Amino acid sequence: MIGYPNKKKTQSPANDPAISKARRGMSLEDDLNKTNSYYLDVDRAVIFKKPTPIQVVEVSYPSRNKARITEAYYRQASTTDYNGVYKGLPIDFEAKETVNKTSFPLAKLHRHQLDHLMNVYRHGAVAFLLIRFSSLDETYMIMVKSLIQYLAENDRQSIPYEWIKNEGMFIPYSLTPPVDYLTALDKMFTKGVTRNEEK
Amino acid sequence: MIGYPNKKKTQSPANDPAISKARRGMSLEDDLNKTNSYYLDVDRAVIFKKPTPIQVVEVSYPSRNKARITEAYYRQASTTDYNGVYKGLPIDFEAKETVNKTSFPLAKLHRHQLDHLMNVYRHGAVAFLLIRFSSLDETYMIMVKSLIQYLAENDRQSIPYEWIKNEGMFIPYSLTPPVDYLTALDKMFTKGVTRNEEK
Repeated sequence: MIGYPNKKKTQSPANDPAISKARRGMSLEDDLNKTNSYYLDVDRAVIFKKPTPIQVVEVSYPSRNKARITEAYYRQASTTDYNGVYKGLPIDFEAKETVNKTSFPLAKLHRHQLDHLMNVYRHGAVAFLLIRFSSLDETYMIMVKSLIQYLAENDRQSIPYEWIKNEGMFIPYSLTPPVDYLTALDKMFTKGVTRNEEK
Repeated sequence: MIGYPNKKKTQSPANDPAISKARRGMSLEDDLNKTNSYYLDVDRAVIFKKPTPIQVVEVSYPSRNKARITEAYYRQASTTDYNGVYKGLPIDFEAKETVNKTSFPLAKLHRHQLDHLMNVYRHGAVAFLLIRFSSLDETYMIMVKSLIQYLAENDRQSIPYEWIKNEGMFIPYSLTPPVDYLTALDKMFTKGVTRNEEK
């Protein structure tokens, strides 16, 4: 950032127009990869994105050591994309982006992802959804417990932005790491129940 | 199994020669897939094998909906193959087979797998190794805590079968599920510390 020395103000990176501009085009997935690497580096947590499941049909061996896959297809995952360990607890979440500004379309959350989140929640995992409103450049954490309640009480195809803003935890953009969701989670821990402790 | 009525004896499935013969060629991975499906069906735990990471280089679209991967390569995983949630605890393990009868060659456990196991163990996961001696048709569970101790005290390239038999937990073969490692784990829980509770 080239500064204007006399106009310099104290501002958070999220409000800094230079950073905001530079970040355009960075996907939530890219940001989460950086964030998880950072957590691993500083030894805060061990959380990984699962590889995309691919069904391999044909493999050739152009050289003796290297297998080259020549025919394969994407398969549907049966779980969420992210899981791991934080403070001795199982962590499991899915991350979604939307360009909508007023609501999150539930069609973006596949049935098997929701089923998996509910499943691990029942078994005692800290389970949540990260939703980024990319047009607003805002990311929120929604605990599965809140999500289940919303779905039980509402028969809508989407979750309003206002509900997410009230029920979720805003995750401010930072440089390291870009999506500091564990700090948001720590705040959730102090607010109350984040997981099912019956099992 | 075609029985010989007059010779029928009470015996465990593992010792039944008919079952033992039928099982030959079933890999530990196949058995674990069935076991994890079973645990999910009876709602005992939510544990999945992670997909093999594949780097996709080229994709073609022969029809509008179906993406066909035409060039891709296997990548090295940075974690273990299996993880999930059981009794509110994070579970993480790697499964290995050997045809050796007297020891498990440590070369089969890759550095990144061992590092990952140690990492999740430190962060409070229940971390272990499943080792199958396929020639003997015997499967054992070794807690990472024991493994770390073995590696600290021994400068060998392998772990003797006798050590595994003494320090590990034998997992008898059963029909449903084939590798009932959670029942073995329950016994480990009653025996003592299975995870690091400092973090």
